[in-house]
Amino acid sequence: MRRAALLLACASLAATPTPAQTSPVPGTRQPVDPQAAWLTYSPVDTAHVFPAGTPVPDTILRLGDSALENTAANELHRGFEGMLHRILRSDTRTNLPERACNLIVVGTASEIAQWRPSLREQKALAPEGFHLRRITSGKDTLLIVEGADERGSLYGSFALLRMIAEEQPLTHLDDTEAPSAPVRWTNEWDNPNGSIERGYGGRSIFFDSGNVREDLTRASQYARLLASVGINGCTINNVNADPNLLRPEKLDQIARIAAAFRPYGVRLSLSIAMNSPEAIGGLGTFDPLAPEVAAWWQTKIDAIYKAIPDFGGVIIKADSEGQPGPSQYGRTPAEAANVVARALQPHNGLVLYRGFVYNHHLDWRDPKADRARAGYDNFHSLDGQFDTNVIVQIKNGPIDFQVREPVSPLFSGLHKTNEAIELQITQEYTGQQRHLVFLVPMWKNALDTDMHVPGAQPSRVRDIVTGKTFARPEGGFVGVANVGLDGYWLGHPLAMANLYGFGRLAWDPSLSSATISDEWTRLTFGNDADVRRVINGLLLNSWHIYEDYTGPLGAGTLTDIIGPHYGPGIESAERNGWGQWIRADHNGIGMDRTVATGTGYIGQYPAGLAAEYETLKACPDALLLFMHHVPYTYRLHSGKTVIQYIYDTHYAGAAAAAAQVPAWEALAGKVPDRTYFEVLNRLNYQAGHSLVWRDAVVNWFHQMSGIADAEGRVGHHPNRIEAEAMQLTGYTPVAVTPWETASGGKAVVCHQKTCEANTTFTRPDGWYNIAVQYFDLHEGVSHFTLDVNGSPVDAWAADDTLPSDKLNGHTSTRHTTAGIALHRGDRIRIVGEPGGNEPAPLDYLEITPAFAGTVRKAVKK
Amino acid sequence: MRRAALLLACASLAATPTPAQTSPVPGTRQPVDPQAAWLTYSPVDTAHVFPAGTPVPDTILRLGDSALENTAANELHRGFEGMLHRILRSDTRTNLPERACNLIVVGTASEIAQWRPSLREQKALAPEGFHLRRITSGKDTLLIVEGADERGSLYGSFALLRMIAEEQPLTHLDDTEAPSAPVRWTNEWDNPNGSIERGYGGRSIFFDSGNVREDLTRASQYARLLASVGINGCTINNVNADPNLLRPEKLDQIARIAAAFRPYGVRLSLSIAMNSPEAIGGLGTFDPLAPEVAAWWQTKIDAIYKAIPDFGGVIIKADSEGQPGPSQYGRTPAEAANVVARALQPHNGLVLYRGFVYNHHLDWRDPKADRARAGYDNFHSLDGQFDTNVIVQIKNGPIDFQVREPVSPLFSGLHKTNEAIELQITQEYTGQQRHLVFLVPMWKNALDTDMHVPGAQPSRVRDIVTGKTFARPEGGFVGVANVGLDGYWLGHPLAMANLYGFGRLAWDPSLSSATISDEWTRLTFGNDADVRRVINGLLLNSWHIYEDYTGPLGAGTLTDIIGPHYGPGIESAERNGWGQWIRADHNGIGMDRTVATGTGYIGQYPAGLAAEYETLKACPDALLLFMHHVPYTYRLHSGKTVIQYIYDTHYAGAAAAAAQVPAWEALAGKVPDRTYFEVLNRLNYQAGHSLVWRDAVVNWFHQMSGIADAEGRVGHHPNRIEAEAMQLTGYTPVAVTPWETASGGKAVVCHQKTCEANTTFTRPDGWYNIAVQYFDLHEGVSHFTLDVNGSPVDAWAADDTLPSDKLNGHTSTRHTTAGIALHRGDRIRIVGEPGGNEPAPLDYLEITPAFAGTVRKAVKK
Repeated sequence: MRRAALLLACASLAATPTPAQTSPVPGTRQPVDPQAAWLTYSPVDTAHVFPAGTPVPDTILRLGDSALENTAANELHRGFEGMLHRILRSDTRTNLPERACNLIVVGTASEIAQWRPSLREQKALAPEGFHLRRITSGKDTLLIVEGADERGSLYGSFALLRMIAEEQPLTHLDDTEAPSAPVRWTNEWDNPNGSIERGYGGRSIFFDSGNVREDLTRASQYARLLASVGINGCTINNVNADPNLLRPEKLDQIARIAAAFRPYGVRLSLSIAMNSPEAIGGLGTFDPLAPEVAAWWQTKIDAIYKAIPDFGGVIIKADSEGQPGPSQYGRTPAEAANVVARALQPHNGLVLYRGFVYNHHLDWRDPKADRARAGYDNFHSLDGQFDTNVIVQIKNGPIDFQVREPVSPLFSGLHKTNEAIELQITQEYTGQQRHLVFLVPMWKNALDTDMHVPGAQPSRVRDIVTGKTFARPEGGFVGVANVGLDGYWLGHPLAMANLYGFGRLAWDPSLSSATISDEWTRLTFGNDADVRRVINGLLLNSWHIYEDYTGPLGAGTLTDIIGPHYGPGIESAERNGWGQWIRADHNGIGMDRTVATGTGYIGQYPAGLAAEYETLKACPDALLLFMHHVPYTYRLHSGKTVIQYIYDTHYAGAAAAAAQVPAWEALAGKVPDRTYFEVLNRLNYQAGHSLVWRDAVVNWFHQMSGIADAEGRVGHHPNRIEAEAMQLTGYTPVAVTPWETASGGKAVVCHQKTCEANTTFTRPDGWYNIAVQYFDLHEGVSHFTLDVNGSPVDAWAADDTLPSDKLNGHTSTRHTTAGIALHRGDRIRIVGEPGGNEPAPLDYLEITPAFAGTVRKAVKK
Repeated sequence: MRRAALLLACASLAATPTPAQTSPVPGTRQPVDPQAAWLTYSPVDTAHVFPAGTPVPDTILRLGDSALENTAANELHRGFEGMLHRILRSDTRTNLPERACNLIVVGTASEIAQWRPSLREQKALAPEGFHLRRITSGKDTLLIVEGADERGSLYGSFALLRMIAEEQPLTHLDDTEAPSAPVRWTNEWDNPNGSIERGYGGRSIFFDSGNVREDLTRASQYARLLASVGINGCTINNVNADPNLLRPEKLDQIARIAAAFRPYGVRLSLSIAMNSPEAIGGLGTFDPLAPEVAAWWQTKIDAIYKAIPDFGGVIIKADSEGQPGPSQYGRTPAEAANVVARALQPHNGLVLYRGFVYNHHLDWRDPKADRARAGYDNFHSLDGQFDTNVIVQIKNGPIDFQVREPVSPLFSGLHKTNEAIELQITQEYTGQQRHLVFLVPMWKNALDTDMHVPGAQPSRVRDIVTGKTFARPEGGFVGVANVGLDGYWLGHPLAMANLYGFGRLAWDPSLSSATISDEWTRLTFGNDADVRRVINGLLLNSWHIYEDYTGPLGAGTLTDIIGPHYGPGIESAERNGWGQWIRADHNGIGMDRTVATGTGYIGQYPAGLAAEYETLKACPDALLLFMHHVPYTYRLHSGKTVIQYIYDTHYAGAAAAAAQVPAWEALAGKVPDRTYFEVLNRLNYQAGHSLVWRDAVVNWFHQMSGIADAEGRVGHHPNRIEAEAMQLTGYTPVAVTPWETASGGKAVVCHQKTCEANTTFTRPDGWYNIAVQYFDLHEGVSHFTLDVNGSPVDAWAADDTLPSDKLNGHTSTRHTTAGIALHRGDRIRIVGEPGGNEPAPLDYLEITPAFAGTVRKAVKK
């Protein structure tokens, strides 16, 4: 009996008898926690994964005893239990019994070669890569997860679990993969006080009140999610960095986060402020060329590595948007980067130096001034001056994560410098997770752009950042994620497709948007055909829908760029130093960035690409207004005028946003209830807010151009009753700024206990929906009551938390009371009751015909 | 314009145009709150309810302005919005416009006759009844909800909403209903400290820490549920009454509960202690014939009515189970009831005097002693002595809510006395809402029993308690509900079918169990055919399943009757004064209650029914052991011996309980997730606990009778490994009491930090489920780990809150680890870690073959 205990357990169970099919897993079951995101491990059809004749392995043989391989075994255990209802054992004993074994073997290439030399790979695996194969070896059947290294073993295990979740048959498994680039990091813009800059998923999972949180459960869960898609680094603090985080007592706390990351192979990194030697070091300078500054950095970096031996490196934002930088001492970004890089070099640490350096006091009256030029202008000349462990981190576009931009010309402007592309997962300019925008197609657009670098092929952006084009040793992908304590991490449950997609693209940028969308949907919601069809449809169309009702033709998002970057604010970019100008006037719109007559920006691209952008004839419509200034009557390649294109796309976009709601409703009962309602409510909100966007944009351009909508829609709202045109008791009209964010430019507000707005219905008898457009400020909770002929029919509270305390496009919100019979002569009244500093502001009523009353879809709740 | 505002709004919308079908109700949606129970008002197909040509009413015309009619209008508003997505207006203006109107009219008969004399009913409606009809009247189309009185209007509105929820067409609506009896009350056994005697749904919704709760939201929600099924009274405190609740300051608090009930027409009543005049009144006596006692009651009752003008009356439990009563002074129950009744009479209040009076110090050695006789013996002779506002409240059976009892002979023993039947909604003896038992079929069994009262037909129990048989003015139905703060009110979500069913039977006892089950299922979960099939199947079979694995053939539930009345405890009823004897010995079992040779109990029934019970030949098998003592070898009408019947039903019952789990699993995604998992977990628990029941009963009778199971199951458990037979480290064997509640009569316990039980697997290689049977005491949380060959495969906590702190049939619990490969020679180990006073007790392992590995059902989470 003793001998058996020394052997690894295994059994050949191909011929297991079939008892009656009963409930497979008795015991207490719980609904999937949304925090599991795409790692739900929900049940799949075993017969698809292990077809008849393919026995299910029963034991995990873990050849190494490292933390990462232990994590891999744990995940395989969870995954097999959840998806296949099999409890696997995990063992490190390699002493197999004489009977046939049916194992999953997890190990590094060297561990496997040592265990069974016959299994040695012919060709070495690339770092962090893996080889998955199913073979028979002697009497045993083996499902081998072989990593190039320990990370590879972990990534291979997650890849195997993904195949199972997608119900792929494993009978002939033989899959070798490796990541496209060594750097696959997220940035988190968390502040030590627990807030997150441009974060829309609640407060920080790392920090609170200046310290690292006691409970780091979420940090650990997050590292698991990151590892599952091959992300190997995470920068935990805001690029506008607080120098205090480098103090010794904070480093001890941060080491706890690194410990939470470590079992998942995620290396922690920090954003640092260049003035740290002065701010916390007590030096009189932070001049990167001063010896005492270099010494200070060396001491500090050594201290970090003492606390966090696997520390990944630092991110530096300097000389940008008010951050201190080397320009103060007349030094270059290269000199700044290198002083830190040299301190990191002995530890194999990296510097990611952000290319986002520009002057935000540009003179808007200067037709040659152009913020888009800044990255190239500032960094191109430094090519070759950066140390080998420095990477210049370049945003995908030259401006700032707009809904549509060309790729940054800097990608092709550095041949002797490591590069990483910075993509933004958090939807700063794309609806802030209140709007559904699947960003992968946008990122693919950038990554697949061929820069036509002469003599260096291939030179698509993805070839450049992965180091292929210029044979760079370092580089890759950085995603600004900004997850928070929100149960869904990012607020919108479907926004997690962006985090997933970022990781997958960083691993393999050749994956298509459709593949990534479908993978995420299957992992998150299962393999039901309806679920896949609906969610893939929603995701893949969402970027175009959002673009349609926001910024057209590459003009920029048209949001309030000096405010929260959320709702419409068409002119906010104009006539200030920030340089996001759209140059719109009564005649035309667009930035002339040509070499011939404009800022010359186009000349920063290699000739092949520049030729495409320089002429109106060749320039793609989607980027027209980014590259050129044209009259509103200019005809696009499609033959449509610019102004009519603006009108048409905005009406089409808002209609498409509204259509997302019934599409989603088809999934009632097919996705978890909590998620169903969370998404439904966000899509409903988006449908309302897309009208705010539509109206603001079309009204502004209509006013500016004086050109009528050929379809007769703009400026005509036959179903709308302006609040200021109603009979008001207590309410007083006010002008709204900017004017285009309120219907008619005006709203009404209440500065007494309650106010009333009354109107008489004068249209034919029928069933109607009454939409009330109001403003829901961040502060205060107003209450509204709707009654008809004195009979109350609806009541609601303005209790959302939108990013403004003013009446504008950020706060304009719609509430619809649907299915009410109205007849000519009915008195409709809205009673508003202010709460806090919110004066129950109303914009308008819109009364539209409702259903005929015969078709009702049952919604399971 | 002013004139329009004076008119009620209405419109004829039969010819409403059909716009595009879009999402009907934009705005924020939330999942149904389980507290809404069957009043979910979920969407239905409008075309079924209002077929083409039947316009949907748009306005509620409320003819009266009473609180109840206002409630009715609010419910219609909620129901039409939720189910039909129509927002109705509610108005009291009867000044209709000249155009055609399409109204719901809500009013009492007199209000309707006054409004439009042409609509006057030909025949008066019975009190609390209603008439629903759809008619045209002049130019108007009217859906009339006409109540005999205000309660009738409210009940009619709920009835209309129920028809809509069931998608019944209303085109030819013409439905007149009235309740079967005036008394339709629930009793709640809530204590002032917030606990609830025999309550399994959390703490009191009324009381906490000796006072009425500040927040009475749940009390209000509860009254809504009660009113929706026509329940018109609720007794808010334990029948074992605390006299202090009658103190003035408490009455002021209780008046707040009455106020929460009032909009729903639910009259509050109180349980009172007969010794209140002495206990809180300062008198030296509570003799009901003492003048000062009568005066004290009059003053107290007057004070109650001052605080609660619609107070319903009192419940009295006296001279029973230690409660003080009139016997102390040699007075009768009638004298006790009447002194209070006379104080209530001027206020139209009622006394419900419980017939549950018996001696719980019976001599078990006396073959003539019989607790079942007590009700009849104590009350029969008092017939005619009770005042007209007294009702004797009689439990359905003569013992105490056992899983199977005959009806109480007292029902036919009182001809000149008002009666009410007491039914128990809270599952005291039927699984305490941890087991699924739909009690309506059991109640129907009692209500439909024909007592064959000579010269008084019909004389089914339901004819008697509704006053028909003996032309009594008062009487009806009392249900002991014991709802609590639990989100589902009663703990088990499906247990709410019992509360619903009680109300429906009280309204109309001719309704079938299947009708009630289907109504409740449709209202709670919608009209999906699969949902109805599965839930109706579960509900309608559940009582028989529970009976099968608990007490057979009328012997009683066989639970621990001197403990929590929950798990098995076969002998607990024997040899004590409580009189629930089953009289089982080595030869036979059963109480001889015949006239010929037994206690004479059967002679309390009218001759026609007595003849059926008196002879073995005529006595139905289901009540055999209640009426007769027979040898185990006695053959039932089916030809099976008693002992084999016991064996067979217990195996069949446990198998049927297990089969409930996969039946329910078919509803994943078709019922709300929260409910799905809550029910799934309870059904899984029940499947495990039904094995505890099965084994305890069959082993006890096997031991007692010495007769082998013809099927060879009893005492043979080839898949079982007793904990005490395993290799133990730290664990020590203990004898369990009663012995039949542990396998082999023994378990093992741990009195050190951790203990181990080891065994070697000696069966063929294969996939197996490992079930661990352990004891989960009320106090303490032990932890268990299961490993195989040193590799951990599962871990769980014993953290349930079961009603005992001992190792027995209440606490025996099963945990199953499903789908693990085992091979001959594997070492299986359980590590137990005691927590609190719980010594990680283990009973046995049971290892059963698992699935073959090809069929896996996807469960949506």
